[in-house]
Amino acid sequence: MQFLDDYQRIVAEAIDKYTFKDKPAELYEPMNYIISHGGKRLRPIMVLMANDMFDGELEKALKPALAIEFFHNFTLIHDDIMDEAPLRRGKPTIHTLHGVNVGILSGDALLFKAYKFFEDLEPNLFKACMRVFNHTGLLLSEGQQYDINFETKGDVTFNDYIRMITYKTGILSASSFEIGALIAGANFTDAKAIFNFGKHVGIAFQIMDDYLDVFGQQESFGKMHAGDIVENKKTVLYLLAKEHATEEERKELEFWYSKKTDNLDKIYSVEKIFRRTKVDEKALLLIQKHNEIAQHYLNKINVPDEKKKPFIELANYLLRRDS
Amino acid sequence: MQFLDDYQRIVAEAIDKYTFKDKPAELYEPMNYIISHGGKRLRPIMVLMANDMFDGELEKALKPALAIEFFHNFTLIHDDIMDEAPLRRGKPTIHTLHGVNVGILSGDALLFKAYKFFEDLEPNLFKACMRVFNHTGLLLSEGQQYDINFETKGDVTFNDYIRMITYKTGILSASSFEIGALIAGANFTDAKAIFNFGKHVGIAFQIMDDYLDVFGQQESFGKMHAGDIVENKKTVLYLLAKEHATEEERKELEFWYSKKTDNLDKIYSVEKIFRRTKVDEKALLLIQKHNEIAQHYLNKINVPDEKKKPFIELANYLLRRDS
Repeated sequence: MQFLDDYQRIVAEAIDKYTFKDKPAELYEPMNYIISHGGKRLRPIMVLMANDMFDGELEKALKPALAIEFFHNFTLIHDDIMDEAPLRRGKPTIHTLHGVNVGILSGDALLFKAYKFFEDLEPNLFKACMRVFNHTGLLLSEGQQYDINFETKGDVTFNDYIRMITYKTGILSASSFEIGALIAGANFTDAKAIFNFGKHVGIAFQIMDDYLDVFGQQESFGKMHAGDIVENKKTVLYLLAKEHATEEERKELEFWYSKKTDNLDKIYSVEKIFRRTKVDEKALLLIQKHNEIAQHYLNKINVPDEKKKPFIELANYLLRRDS
Repeated sequence: MQFLDDYQRIVAEAIDKYTFKDKPAELYEPMNYIISHGGKRLRPIMVLMANDMFDGELEKALKPALAIEFFHNFTLIHDDIMDEAPLRRGKPTIHTLHGVNVGILSGDALLFKAYKFFEDLEPNLFKACMRVFNHTGLLLSEGQQYDINFETKGDVTFNDYIRMITYKTGILSASSFEIGALIAGANFTDAKAIFNFGKHVGIAFQIMDDYLDVFGQQESFGKMHAGDIVENKKTVLYLLAKEHATEEERKELEFWYSKKTDNLDKIYSVEKIFRRTKVDEKALLLIQKHNEIAQHYLNKINVPDEKKKPFIELANYLLRRDS
């Protein structure tokens, strides 16, 4: 999409401009390393999109947009340590290259840099953004802890799951939009509406992620087929299946999810229950539901329809990856 | 000291009052655990002292004072992981009890809570405090990284060392005082003066810590004698000794600091060089120098002498522990 490319170029240039030159290099080079590897940088783009929606100045939103990207990378550095992930965006993770200590510390420092990047805003706006930012950080930590808890918790419910993905994925998109809107001077109602748009697109995106793991086209998605089943992850598919399974199927699901194996029998058996309980359809309906809620909030915002088009395109882009 | 006891009671009551009741418990209980174990809680007390110096309201300074304590404990949780420390204030560290992941995450969440505890301040003051707080966080991260670097860096200089302890110890005391002063409405000059008072007391305190490791009375100090020598720590004593040693002594020092052992020969030999180069006297002179700089800044502050008394008593208390 052209507008995404344009925003991506703006963000990339800003990241280049603000490359950390601070010392000690042992602390700052890992920070530059992870930020320079990019990814799609959707969150800073969300800040800029919302800022444009309400006719804000690019200059004013640019450093806060980077702050969101720094924040996101702070969470990635720490999450990668927790998940013992060797790779991120195809490159070795920071703790793999430099050890856990540098991972913890450069993550912390990146978070402080993120906070500092709001300091050009005038006090009222600064405080409004900081409230959103602090709240986001706390909910993200809580979401990550819920996710960790789920690994050993037997009785995860569908509501537990929705809260977890809301905290882990929905809130940061939501806050990115809200901060962009606040910086542009949007009123409280509109800022909350674009927050809720982002939240529900984020939730829908995460459900799509779970869906595609099993029902996506492997080639275009670029991840191992059914990796979540292998890892016994309590995804939306698993939780919906448990809910709608027969007693016998539920026992079979629990049996397979007590073993960590990429045995094809396991994948085949679990997928069979998934199809039998129609969780593929149910997941798609959920995605549609959250997309509709997102659109509902978008509709309520008091700007010309033309201004909303990129948001609809972004949601479509995020939710139709290859399905 | 009576006034310290009084402040300690106020802080303890506030900590009780604001015990985290949030969920998930797996995230918040470790935070309550480390905070409830206390320690002397000097940093929140510094906030309250500076607030009182400029006739601020206790109610207004209390949550920011707790924020400083939360921040301090966030650094302790992460530092303990990095140092693989089994104990903190005589109790098992969080990562020892709950694993490194919970340590990283509850540290992060505690930092976000610290930020949130400033949110009751009006926007101008909020922003002024956040600038101090963000800067402090960044310098502390840098100081911790310098400290880690020193373990493997051969040519650590005296100036490197002073910067490291300034960032690791001086800045947080300094900022605690400054934030207390800002909340009370002190002007910029006075707030900077009390910042600098705290910075130099902090530096002097850290040098005293190095001094007492070798020259303190073991019983009252409560730490292993010469633990820094055993650990090959590049303390002020080591750096001054290297500077003032003969070529032969310097080689001997480097020889011993290439071995990690509690061999008494090592401790005896190193201490002999320390005494020969008179680093004990030099360290005491440095402590005196930084204490004098601190007093110089205190003198400049435009409040009645009576208001300065607790600050002088605090500095004396910190710097004369058992020497």
